[in-house]
Parts: sequence; C-alpha cells; structure tokens
Amino acid sequence: MDQVNGPRDLKKLSAQELTALSGELRHLIMDCVRENGGHLAANLGVVELTIALHYLYDSPRDKIVWDVGHQTYIHKLLTGRRDVFHTLRCMGGLSGFPKRRESEHDVFETGHSSTSISAALGMARARDLAMERYHVVAVIGDGAMTGGMALEALNDMGQSQEDMLVILNDNEMSISKNVGAISTHLSNIRTDKRYLLFKRGIENALQKIPLIGKPLARLVEKIKDGLKYLMIPGIMFEEMGLTYMGPVDGHDIPKLLSAMRHAKEMKGPVLLHVITHKGKGWAASETDPEQYHAVSPKKPEDAGKGFSKTLGDTLVSLGENDPRIVAVTAAMPLGTGLAPFGWRFPARLFDVGIAEQHAVTMAAGLAANGYRPVVAVYSTFLQRAYDQILHDVCLQRLPVIFCLDRAGLTGRDGETHHGAFDMSFLRHMPNITVLAPSCPADLAAMIPYAVSLNGPVAIRYPKNGVHSSFVKKESFQGGKWSILGEGDRGVIFAVGRMVDRAMEAKDILKKRGINMTVVDACVVKPLDEEMLKRFTDMPLWVTMEDNTLPGGFGSGVTEWLAGEDTHIPVVSLGLPDAFVPHGSVGELDAMLHLDAQGVADRIESALGRTRRT
Amino acid sequence: MDQVNGPRDLKKLSAQELTALSGELRHLIMDCVRENGGHLAANLGVVELTIALHYLYDSPRDKIVWDVGHQTYIHKLLTGRRDVFHTLRCMGGLSGFPKRRESEHDVFETGHSSTSISAALGMARARDLAMERYHVVAVIGDGAMTGGMALEALNDMGQSQEDMLVILNDNEMSISKNVGAISTHLSNIRTDKRYLLFKRGIENALQKIPLIGKPLARLVEKIKDGLKYLMIPGIMFEEMGLTYMGPVDGHDIPKLLSAMRHAKEMKGPVLLHVITHKGKGWAASETDPEQYHAVSPKKPEDAGKGFSKTLGDTLVSLGENDPRIVAVTAAMPLGTGLAPFGWRFPARLFDVGIAEQHAVTMAAGLAANGYRPVVAVYSTFLQRAYDQILHDVCLQRLPVIFCLDRAGLTGRDGETHHGAFDMSFLRHMPNITVLAPSCPADLAAMIPYAVSLNGPVAIRYPKNGVHSSFVKKESFQGGKWSILGEGDRGVIFAVGRMVDRAMEAKDILKKRGINMTVVDACVVKPLDEEMLKRFTDMPLWVTMEDNTLPGGFGSGVTEWLAGEDTHIPVVSLGLPDAFVPHGSVGELDAMLHLDAQGVADRIESALGRTRRT
Repeated sequence: MDQVNGPRDLKKLSAQELTALSGELRHLIMDCVRENGGHLAANLGVVELTIALHYLYDSPRDKIVWDVGHQTYIHKLLTGRRDVFHTLRCMGGLSGFPKRRESEHDVFETGHSSTSISAALGMARARDLAMERYHVVAVIGDGAMTGGMALEALNDMGQSQEDMLVILNDNEMSISKNVGAISTHLSNIRTDKRYLLFKRGIENALQKIPLIGKPLARLVEKIKDGLKYLMIPGIMFEEMGLTYMGPVDGHDIPKLLSAMRHAKEMKGPVLLHVITHKGKGWAASETDPEQYHAVSPKKPEDAGKGFSKTLGDTLVSLGENDPRIVAVTAAMPLGTGLAPFGWRFPARLFDVGIAEQHAVTMAAGLAANGYRPVVAVYSTFLQRAYDQILHDVCLQRLPVIFCLDRAGLTGRDGETHHGAFDMSFLRHMPNITVLAPSCPADLAAMIPYAVSLNGPVAIRYPKNGVHSSFVKKESFQGGKWSILGEGDRGVIFAVGRMVDRAMEAKDILKKRGINMTVVDACVVKPLDEEMLKRFTDMPLWVTMEDNTLPGGFGSGVTEWLAGEDTHIPVVSLGLPDAFVPHGSVGELDAMLHLDAQGVADRIESALGRTRRT
Repeated sequence: MDQVNGPRDLKKLSAQELTALSGELRHLIMDCVRENGGHLAANLGVVELTIALHYLYDSPRDKIVWDVGHQTYIHKLLTGRRDVFHTLRCMGGLSGFPKRRESEHDVFETGHSSTSISAALGMARARDLAMERYHVVAVIGDGAMTGGMALEALNDMGQSQEDMLVILNDNEMSISKNVGAISTHLSNIRTDKRYLLFKRGIENALQKIPLIGKPLARLVEKIKDGLKYLMIPGIMFEEMGLTYMGPVDGHDIPKLLSAMRHAKEMKGPVLLHVITHKGKGWAASETDPEQYHAVSPKKPEDAGKGFSKTLGDTLVSLGENDPRIVAVTAAMPLGTGLAPFGWRFPARLFDVGIAEQHAVTMAAGLAANGYRPVVAVYSTFLQRAYDQILHDVCLQRLPVIFCLDRAGLTGRDGETHHGAFDMSFLRHMPNITVLAPSCPADLAAMIPYAVSLNGPVAIRYPKNGVHSSFVKKESFQGGKWSILGEGDRGVIFAVGRMVDRAMEAKDILKKRGINMTVVDACVVKPLDEEMLKRFTDMPLWVTMEDNTLPGGFGSGVTEWLAGEDTHIPVVSLGLPDAFVPHGSVGELDAMLHLDAQGVADRIESALGRTRRT
C-alpha cells in the first residue's frame, strides 16, 4: 500500500501483489470506520472491483461513475487520499461520498441512488460529440438498479448504443432484503441449475441425446421452458439492447481482470454482472449487512434515541385496532423503524425496494381504496417522489401519511443526506398538513391525529431523539402549537429539534436579563394563526428550524405577517441557502450559529437593533 | 348511443352493435374537440378498447385506472356524462382528465405519465387485504411505459404476483417519435418475421426438418439466434414475472373481447399488448399524431405566440458558434420548440422519451464533461425531476439550463397541467439562478446570459406570448430588474406574464388618480436587492406572479423584507394555495382576481388600508 500513491502505481503490481493489496485495504478501512463510522459493508464488498477498475482503466481520463457513492473509500485510498483518509467523514475532512472538489478522480457527485447510468451516458455522449476517446464506466448495485431512473437510463442507452460499460455490482442484498422482479431475475442467473448446465456446455449435452422423434420433442420443450436461463443469462438486459456478460466472481482479481478486459474491448453498451459479498472479510457485517450498512462512529454524537422506534411501536399499537393501517417503505424497513410493524403484520408492510416514486403512488392506490398507508422514508430520499406527493396524493386529497425520518441536519453523511429541504418542498403543496414533533412522545400523539385528518399529512423528525433539557407541560393536541415558557422581550417559534435548542437559548438569555417566550410550532402547515395573532404585540419574533430558509417555516411566518397591518421585526434562523457539508450535527449547528450560544447571541443582537430603530 | 346511459347498457349490445357504437362515438368526440380543443388523436385510438373494457368489466366495482388520463373521453361518454360532454374542458364543465368528483367511474386522478401501474397495484393490494373480489386494470401507453416509475411498478408487481391486468396500449408512437429500448422491443414483436413464423406454428416447421446431425445443429443455432422473438414475444415482461399476452388488434372488437376475456380469467399479473392507431378514423391525425396530439379550441385564447419558437430560434443561432450547446427533451421536441435545433444539429438533440429524471441527470453528465445542455420540459412535468435538479445539478453547480415552457396557468388542461409550483420548488435550491422573461425578446437575451453564468439556471415562461400592451424601453440586461413606469403611491414587482397585467392595472389606477411604479422582476433568484432597496421608502409593495403564493416570488420578497429595519405593507398576488381547475387562462385570471381590473381593485383597497393605519 505504501507504494501506491495513485492509480499509475497500481498498474506496476502483479496479480498476486494486487490480491495482497486488497487485504491491506480491508484493514485500513475497517480501522478507520470503527473510529469515524461509515458504510463499512458496501466498501468491503468492492475492494477487488475497485482495484481492478483502477488497474485496467486510466482515471481520470477514463470516467468511473459510482452509484450512491458510499462505496468509494477504496477508490479514495487508491487515488491519492491515503494520507488524509483518517479524516473521513469528519468536519473539514474527506467526505464519505465522491466530491469533485476533493479529487479529479471523483467525476460525478452523488449520495442518492440510481443516478450513475444517466450521468455516465451523458459523459459518453459528450465524449462522442467532442470526438474524444476515453472509457466511461458506471458502477451500480443491484438495489439501485430497481430505481426507475436507472431503468430509464438503461432504456435510453440500450437503444442509442453508445460505447460504455455498466458494472452491475450484485451483492445479492442491497441495504435490506432485495425486492422486485429484477432481483429475482439476477438471483435466477446466479442459482439456476439450468444455467450451470449451460456453463458446462449445452452443445455437448445435446450431442449425447439420441436423435429420435420423442426425445427431440422433449428437448424442444425443455429448451422452451428453460430457455431464458439456459441460453441467455441476463436476457432482460440483452432485450434492452445491452451486451450482457457474467456473472463473474467479484472477489477473484484474475477472473475479474479477465472479464473486464473483455468488456473494455467491446463496442456498444455492455453490462458486466459481478457477484460480490457485502462486508467481505468482516464476519459480523457479512451475516447481517442491513444492520451494519452504516456503522456509527465510536463516540455517538447524540445520546437521545427514539423517533424511529416510536414510529414502529405506535404503528403496531394502532394497527391492532385499525385494520386500515398499512406501511410502505423503500428498502428501509429497519432504518425507518417499520420492521416491528412488519413482524407483527407481515401482509401489511410493503417494502418496494429503492423506488420512492412507486412507493408513494402505490400508497395512493391503497388510500383510494380505503386504507391509511404510512410511507416512511428518509427526508432526503423523499425528494425523489416530489411529483408523486403533489400530483398523486395531494391533488386527490388522499389519506397518505408520510413519515420523514432523518429530517434536518443528519451529520457525517453530509450534503446529500441532510433532510434540509422538506419543509420548503412540502409547504407549498395544497391540501397537505405538515407536522414536526419536538420529541418522540409528540410523534406518538401525531400519528393517530394524522390518521384522523383523512387527508395527506407529512410528519418530519430528526435522526436522533432530543436531549429533553426541559419537561413539556402538555403533549401534542389537535394541531395546535404550545407555549413552553413565557417572557416579554420576544417570542421564539421553534420547530422540531430546534425547540430544545430554543429552550437552551432562553436559559442563556435569562441570565443576561432577557426573557423570551418559546413556542413549539409543531404544525408547520397550516400555521396556528390564533397563536401568531396572540403575539403581534411582541417586540421581536424569532423563527427556528433546521431546514433551508427559502420557502421554509420562517418564510411561512413572514408571508403571514406581510398580510397583517403591523410591523414586527422577524429573525429567521435556519439552514443557509447552500448545501451544508458533513460533520457531526453538533459541529454543524455551531458552524451555522444554531447552537444555543449562537442563537442567544443573535437574538440579543437583534433586540439591540430593534431598540435602536 | 342514445341507448347507452352507463356501462350496464353496453352489456346488452351485440358485437355488431358495439362496432356501430364506435363509429358514433368517434363522431361525437371529433365534433366536441373541434369546438373545445383537446387530445383528439389519443381518444380516437382507444374507442374500441374503452368499449371492450366497459363491456367486459363491471365499473366502478372493477377499477379501471387510466395512465395520463387524456384518453378518457370515450370512458366519460360511456359512464353517464354524454349530456354534459359539450362542456368538456370548459370552465366549470367536464375535465379533460379523470376526476373523482365527476364520477365514481373515475377511480384515480392523473395528468402526468406513468402512474397507473403503481396506483392499480395499490388498489389490488387493498382488495386482497380486505379479502374483496374485483378486478383491477391499468391502461398505459407505450410512451408512458418508458417512465421510470412505471418500470418500478412492473418490477414490484412482477415479484409480488397480485392478480391484476396491465393493458399496454401500444400506439407505436407516443406523443413524438417513440424512443428507447423498450419501444424497440415492442416494435420487434410487431414486425419480426420470425415472430410470424412462430404464429404459424414452430412445431410444425420443426417436424418437416430431416432429423440428421448437421441440420439439427443448424436448428439449434437458429433457435438460439431467433429465440427471443420466436418463442416468447414480450419476453422482457415475462422475465419480470408477468404473463405476456398479445399482440392483439385494438380496433377489432371481437378479437379484443376474446383476448381480454382470456386475460381476465388468468391469475397473477398479466400484460395484454394491444396495438392501436392514434387518431384512428381521422386522416390528418393518423398521419401526424404529434402535431395533432392536442387540438386547440376553435377560438384561440390568446393571440400572442412566441416563447417556444424563440427558444428554438435562439438555440439554433447560438449553436452555430458554440459547439457546447446541446439540447435535451423528454418526448416534447415540438411542444417545447426544440425541433428546429434538432433539424439543424441532429446529433446535438437528445430526446430521451418520457423520462424526465434521466433527462436531467443525463444532461448533468453532459455538463460535467464540458457541454452546456439546455433541458426543455413543460413546467408541470419537470416536477418529476425535482431531486435530479437539486441533487445532480445544483449540488455540483453544473451548467445545465432548464427551460420551463407552459409555466403558470396553462388553461383548459387544468389542475395537473398548470405550471403552478416551479418558482416555489426552484427558489429553495442552492446555486440555481431563476429567470422569468416577460416577453419572447427577453427570453432570447436570457439564454446567452444563462450560458455565460456557468452554473444551473432555470428560465420559466408561459404557454403563449404576451399581448405587449406596452413597449419595453430596454431588453434584459445581465440579471437586473427593470423599471417600466414610475409612480409614487407604490411599486408593483411583477414576474413574467404578470408584467403585462401590471401595466394594464397601472393604467386603470392612473385613471383613478393613483400612480404606481411597475418593475419587471425578471430575476426571481437571486433577487435584485439593489432595486428592492431603492423602493424601501414606498408606502406599498405589490408582488405579482402566476405561481402558488407559498414559497414563491412574493414569499422571497417578504423573506428579504423581514431582515430589513423598515416596515412596508406587502400585498402578494398570485395563485392560491390550492389546485386551480381548468378553464381558459383569461377566465381563470378573472376568477382569481388576477385580471387587470381585479389587480387594480386590490391595490386600491390595500392603499386605503395603508392610509388608515
């Protein structure tokens, strides 16, 4: 490893040395991830594949586009970032995903699934238009392949026939149990005995069969039945106009190199099917990859827990008495906390795989026929289904409940994983109610309330529970905000995780002789206008949210205020109009002056300005 | 036709009478669409299919889910809406799309493409959970089948094996030339001679071949080559776990009924491939379906024209000198005005079919490798690519230019086709510039400006040109707003089509002794803060936009103002927080008080209020 400072150095190594290198790399990433957290299993699965790619291709001249991007640790180690690898996922350090600013070898940024084939096809077209010569390779997992966008891209590339390679990294298990017909197709290729028969040579077998009438007829029948797997493994891809190659063992470097060399020489679009094992080389992760999909850093950032678990517990309890309750997720039954609901009611949990668009509209179909589906997805991934929420759910005012886990800042996964936009993109949708609990107890109260509304509802909440530096007097009541502490110098309307922070800031300000009222603005849409009117004589309003400021909660408050015949200065605190980088949530809060001290200072300063004017 | 007041009456008719009915229905819709405008070709193509569906199935007990929904005129005529059919697409009359409030036979609303299989699968699951017994049918065109969402749904239903029928209405031509590998696959099924050979009986052919060594080897070779089409037409769908049936002539009622009866009896998911001709029975529409995809009403609503044409002309002219300019569209080369660019530079126009997500990220790939792609899509359809704009383009600050045609109110297509949300969903995306020309000349100036910005830019403009009731002093200059007329009582910041309206309102107000300033706020993001500051001493601000008010342009202005140490009353005029129904743009403007008179009255009233306080 010490000899490898870039892809060029790799090309000098023998196959044996490459295999030795793979062992060193595994140790390096295991050590680092144990300290900093990260996507260990996915990276252990692509060690040999990444080595082979950089051995055969000439990056950055050749373009390697990684899907999702959480499996790029080896890629980073092999492209000159070994010395800073210990900063992985730390504030100011290496990102856990490809970043163009980090390296010229990171040619396309990502974090969400199923984008790589589209991006790679655009690059191949750019190359052909410019009459340049280089290779374009997309590396995509079997889970990501079920995303509609990847299928749109296959459909386009299959017809237009640009030279490019798609490496299907089939780890037999995406984040959770793999779902869908495509997965079944891949699994058939892997396991079908008829396919193995083919590998031994179907022609040989044919020659041994006596050439008389009946056996031939049987043979023809057999060919008809077994045809798909016998003759053309991957016929689905062949049908789409791609040349299918594989499957090949993704942990055997010589075999991998041989298959990839062959694929590299071919013209037109090629799909190379590589079989890998998530967590290869690390026992715990190999046996339970969903559990170990993302490893938390050694020192947990936040002691609290509970929103995801509360969702599961509440749904199980509601589901016992209300048969209309069903649950839908997109490959995240564990992460969203839905799993216990599925254990209790297996027929009532639908995991559609990585397919957020379909998840939402399928839920709309369930709702149109009498059910009350709860769609639990991470906030950032629900962005994929923006049109489905608006056009398929809100338009018809269907009773679908969206549970947006990981809303707001999520920490070390960074820019692509913060749920920074949900209040902005949901707030302008007609007919929807948007809720944001400040503690798990409120989430538990909000779910039956959401069911009772008989229309679209979104509930957004952060990754971790809150510190609960205060005890709430009353729990969530029918869509109303609640006052948590009263003061005469101004009012803080805080949303979700920020309620906790507002209470801390209130305490700091109190010591400085400034008494502020804090309101838990747990209903983001519609605003609690009664409560807003109650405070129109206050000298200052402060809004607090961990959502981007444009179009967010604070924006809704200023929209409302503009229609009133009164002037109140409003300070809107939230995320800036920019992508927030990676770091612990605490570090990011401090950077953005959203920590208690920062909030208190900004309020004090605003009060100073207000007095002046 | 007089005998048919509902699906039940249909079931009494003979096959011959059904065929006669199809002729009557064709005349009815041709007469109506000539008057009111509408999607003539699509409806003429499904006359027999719709008759057969309502003959065989028991709607609304059985659920018929239409994809896109523009082909439901026959369905409306057969389900008790004949008497009000002349109100089609008129304000307050029948919608051109399925609406649950219109009829219990409209079980799922739509307007955008590729949603039907997801919705139908949700309904099938609801049925099975409730242990009810009814049929669920999705009717989807070959164009819509390339949408990723439809493929996600096929993937899910292929594996989960619910009983349901997907009718693939293959009209060999979606809106424009059909694209993609799936289309090629369908075309192969239709035209492949080997498939015809299969129809005549491959087994018979086999028996005639002498059973000796060499011919058998050749036969095996032949089977291997021709396999896909010989044995299993539609193998792609079979591979996904669906039973494929067809193709069947969609204009032959007896054949159609026979195939559909068979499909209805089968268990598990079935795909029935029906071949139809768009515009069947109407010569002009049969030969040029894209041109006749949507027929304009007899009396055009708006005399002006020009944004789409301006886009095409400008791109052709820019493209001559700048080889980086390429264009991308999603099945709308004519509607968006891109076609002339494609005629001039065939290799530089990419029509990816109905696949907005892929269109955007493929463009991002082109941009990442040096090109300047212009993605032209209707505003409402770009909603499908929300995440791709945010996560694949804005995150990397890639120079992709989005041209959003049909922004704002679009008229008689109604709720699903207004571009009512674009400023709200774009304004909160980091790194993007959002422009809105008030006239085609400004669009022409904005495109080179957008190219020069080297980052993401969205330009949104309405369906028709503007009336140009005034002559602008100067054209668009480098991202600055322009003052169109000065007055001291207040300032109207108007966007796009609303600039014209603001000038008309200004004239009306002038006659009442009220002089207003009008500003063309042609840059929606970032706001022209210099211009805003210039007017902080005005007694009233008015914002005007044809976009929903939450999170829109006016919202941006009030957000900005909240940070200033001054109080100015702001009246935000725009679309309400609701789905706006169908009607002519003029009628809708009047209904929403966005016509000149309505705007003038609201400003006068606001000035009265302002004086009082």
